[in-house]
Amino acid sequence: MAGRTSQPGQSVTSRVLAILDAFDIAHPRLSLSEISRRCGVPLATTHRLVGELVAWRGLYRCDDGHYEIGLRLWEVGLLGPLHIRLREIALPFLQTLYEATRENVHLAVRDGDDVLYVEKLAGHRSVPIVSRIGGRLPLHATGVGKALLAHETPGFRRDYLARSLARPTRYTIVEPGRLSADLEQTAQRGYAVTREEMTLGTCSVAAPVLDRAGRPVAAVGAVVQSVLVEPARLAPPIRLAAEGIAARLDATSTG
Amino acid sequence: MAGRTSQPGQSVTSRVLAILDAFDIAHPRLSLSEISRRCGVPLATTHRLVGELVAWRGLYRCDDGHYEIGLRLWEVGLLGPLHIRLREIALPFLQTLYEATRENVHLAVRDGDDVLYVEKLAGHRSVPIVSRIGGRLPLHATGVGKALLAHETPGFRRDYLARSLARPTRYTIVEPGRLSADLEQTAQRGYAVTREEMTLGTCSVAAPVLDRAGRPVAAVGAVVQSVLVEPARLAPPIRLAAEGIAARLDATSTG
Repeated sequence: MAGRTSQPGQSVTSRVLAILDAFDIAHPRLSLSEISRRCGVPLATTHRLVGELVAWRGLYRCDDGHYEIGLRLWEVGLLGPLHIRLREIALPFLQTLYEATRENVHLAVRDGDDVLYVEKLAGHRSVPIVSRIGGRLPLHATGVGKALLAHETPGFRRDYLARSLARPTRYTIVEPGRLSADLEQTAQRGYAVTREEMTLGTCSVAAPVLDRAGRPVAAVGAVVQSVLVEPARLAPPIRLAAEGIAARLDATSTG
Repeated sequence: MAGRTSQPGQSVTSRVLAILDAFDIAHPRLSLSEISRRCGVPLATTHRLVGELVAWRGLYRCDDGHYEIGLRLWEVGLLGPLHIRLREIALPFLQTLYEATRENVHLAVRDGDDVLYVEKLAGHRSVPIVSRIGGRLPLHATGVGKALLAHETPGFRRDYLARSLARPTRYTIVEPGRLSADLEQTAQRGYAVTREEMTLGTCSVAAPVLDRAGRPVAAVGAVVQSVLVEPARLAPPIRLAAEGIAARLDATSTG
């Protein structure tokens, strides 16, 4: 999303949004000239628009002159349904799952071809991992992603498999035939497993949160050190959490 | 923040931001005419700007034509330091505190005269409460708020006490003399206590996260049912969490 270039006649709104797009997890702090360069908006315009965003507290100007995402954007973003609905409903189930496992526990949704992490619980004993709330990873390389992908429509799966897929480790399954068989097995047994497919040394187990029509609205998973845990042992509490969340979502949407 | 009225000559940026301000926790879903009315921007302009925000996915248009805060704003907001720095560092300590208490566990910062909730952990057994991540409550009526206020400068405390203070319950301490004495006691014993001061039936205990200069950068607290818990019993694990977070923040800022 970053690095969008400016067009002549580009609207003010799109320039403001391009300024926000200049920030990403690899670039959470930027100077004014870096913002200007990354979003392709002239420096003088960037200076004026950044000033308006700072006044609104959507950006924060640090003492050293760099800018960070401000409190007001964080606050507004948390008004979205992913947070006030999905995360709030899921939290007690995730907490119970965390207590049962003491491992990294995730709640994620699909966005385009990515899995997007909505919540992550972790303790001092959990293995350090790459996911973060608001972060994205490839669907096919993560447990939560495979749990979602396995329950997408055949058309979506076919299009996804037809693509050239990222291979974060040598164990990532990217061959369409193997991946398709893996997803089939995932759907049949009710949970997904990855073995060092995203990060060497960790594996994951995940189950889908399905709506009444069987559509995957989210996934719940845990990430553990490969050598220590038998995936099948983690599946029951994870499935219980996913089913609990699905039931609560269903109850609150109709009641 | 909502209900800002439009000025002639108002900049496009300020209109876009006023549209975002139209949303709050009591109004997370709005129709186009509600947005227009709440932000004081003419309907045609609102329509155009909302369209640009939807295209960027900062707003989401529901099937029934209402709008909600979109995924992209949520994602950008989570790039701010409250989330990627403070929350990430604090989480394992909060998780340990949750496991020790099974109660609602909070991480909060001061923003102006409000306490702003950065993280909240809760399980099925925790008492339901009003706080939420991204939500605000008055400093003097909450445990985390009093823990922060007790360590603010004398000038800040004096100005705060001079104001007419909200009184959510009949137990809220709003008299300057009593509140001042309570804050003094809070600073001396190292933790704050509220007894039904925010919500009838719940009490809270909280401790400040202090930087090396003794400035309160955050507070950690737990909210429990009044009848069940002796506050003094909760103080040690809460103080331990707050001190752990302070040490990690200090280590990562200098190292």
